[in-house]
Amino acid sequence: MNDDLFKISVVGSGNVASQLIPALSRSKVVITHLSSRNEQSAQGLLGHTTAHKTCQIEELPLNQLALLCVPDDQILPILHRLDPRIEVAYTSGNLHLNQIETSRSAGVFYPLQTFSRERVIDMSAVPMLIEANTKPLESQLLTLAKRISKKVYTKTSDERQQVHQVAVWVNNFTNHILYHARDLSGQYELDFSLFEPLLRETIDKLAVLSPENAQTGPARRGDQRTIQSHLSQLSGIRKEIYDLLSRSIMETYSSKTSKK
Amino acid sequence: MNDDLFKISVVGSGNVASQLIPALSRSKVVITHLSSRNEQSAQGLLGHTTAHKTCQIEELPLNQLALLCVPDDQILPILHRLDPRIEVAYTSGNLHLNQIETSRSAGVFYPLQTFSRERVIDMSAVPMLIEANTKPLESQLLTLAKRISKKVYTKTSDERQQVHQVAVWVNNFTNHILYHARDLSGQYELDFSLFEPLLRETIDKLAVLSPENAQTGPARRGDQRTIQSHLSQLSGIRKEIYDLLSRSIMETYSSKTSKK
Repeated sequence: MNDDLFKISVVGSGNVASQLIPALSRSKVVITHLSSRNEQSAQGLLGHTTAHKTCQIEELPLNQLALLCVPDDQILPILHRLDPRIEVAYTSGNLHLNQIETSRSAGVFYPLQTFSRERVIDMSAVPMLIEANTKPLESQLLTLAKRISKKVYTKTSDERQQVHQVAVWVNNFTNHILYHARDLSGQYELDFSLFEPLLRETIDKLAVLSPENAQTGPARRGDQRTIQSHLSQLSGIRKEIYDLLSRSIMETYSSKTSKK
Repeated sequence: MNDDLFKISVVGSGNVASQLIPALSRSKVVITHLSSRNEQSAQGLLGHTTAHKTCQIEELPLNQLALLCVPDDQILPILHRLDPRIEVAYTSGNLHLNQIETSRSAGVFYPLQTFSRERVIDMSAVPMLIEANTKPLESQLLTLAKRISKKVYTKTSDERQQVHQVAVWVNNFTNHILYHARDLSGQYELDFSLFEPLLRETIDKLAVLSPENAQTGPARRGDQRTIQSHLSQLSGIRKEIYDLLSRSIMETYSSKTSKK
C-alpha cells in the first residue's frame, strides 16, 4: 500500500473536522495542509497536522486528496476555487454526488454521528458511508475509512440521503424535544436530574421493545382531558408541537387499531 | 411501626400495576385484595398477592389503603363505587387532588417512570411523588414509597402536574420521534442498528452538554436546501412534524443570536 495515499489535505475546522482530524491523525494519516475560514478554531487543530499554519484553498497540493469538512452550502463554492485536478471527498449527509462536475474525481466520506467540539467521539464505532465517482477514489476512501472505523459501508447518494433523513429524526429532533423538556423544567424551577431515570429508561427500553410498543402517556391512551390540561399550560410554537405530536401519536395508534 | 400499614388493596392490572405490585410485594408489603376489569392481566399479578382471585371494588376491605393503578379517567368513577371510609391513593401524574371529594382521605402515589408490562423496572431509582389531604395518610404514603424507592418527594398537585408535563416531553414525545425514525428506516429498508451509535451518543452527550448546546443538523445551521430536500421525501403528518420541529429549532437559535 502506497503511503502517499495517507497524506491528505483538510478544508474546514468545524464540528466534523474537530473529530475527524484527530481521529485520522491517530490512525497515521498525515494531514499536510489545513485550510479554514475560521483561524481560531483551525489553530486548535493544527497540532494534529504537519502544517505549521493554515493555507488558502488555492494553495492545496494537487497530488493528494482534499477532505472537505464544511457545511453543504459551502461545498460547491469551494470546488469552484479548487484546482480541478485535486481529488475531493466531502462529509455531507445530503449532497448528491451528481451535483459535482463529472470531470472531477469526487467522493463522499460521511460519518453517521453528531459531533460537537466539546465531546470526543470514539470513531471506531461510527458508521462511515462511502461513495465515489471513480473506482480508484472509492477504494482509497474505503481504505481511509477503515483506518478510523470498524463500520464502513458503500452507499449510493440516494441511500445516504435516506440515512441522513432518519439521522435527523434520531438525533436532531430527539435532541430538540429534550431542549423543550429542559427549558420547561427550568421554567418550573425543577431539577432536571429528576428526569434522568426516565430519559435513561426511554432509550434502554428500545433494546427490548420497538418505539411503537414502548409508547405510553396521555396521547397513547387517548386521554383528552390530560392533553387539554397540558396544552393550557403552554404557548407559542411549544404548544403547536405538543398538539401536533399528540395528534400524531393518536393517529398512529388509532390506525393500528382500525387495521386489526 | 404497625405492620397493618403494610397491608393494602390494589385496583388495576395495567402497566403501572404490573410494576408496582411485584415491587411492593418484594418490599414485604402484603397485597391482600386485587380488583381489576381485565381478568387476564390480573391473573399474572395474583401470584404477588395473598389473594387467590380478583374481587369487585365493592368488596375491598374498609381498614386498609386502596392503591388505584388505573388511567386518570377511571379514578373518579371508581371512587363513586368505593366505600367513602376507604383511604385511597392514585398513581396519576396529572389528576389534581382537589378533584377528589374532601370528605375522603385521599392521596397521590406517583412513580415518575414509563412502564410497560414486558420490561421490569428497578423501582429503587424511580422518583416517587407523594401528596395527601391528611397528614396521617401522607406519612403512610411516604413510608410505603420509601419501601420501594430511594427517591421520595412530597409535591403539591400543581408541582406534580408540571413534572408530568415535562415527563411527556422527555419520554412520550422522544419515543414518538423515534417511532417515526424507525418507521422511515423500515420504509427505506435500512437496518435500524445503523443508528444505534447515533442514538446512544444523542443521550450520552447530554451528560456534558445541554440540549441547547448539543444541537446540530440542517435546521441548526439554517440549511434550507437540505430541509427542503428532506421535506420533499415526506408526506402527511410526518411532513408537518419535520416542518414544525425545523422551524422551532431555527426560532430557538435565531432568537438566541438576536439576544446576544
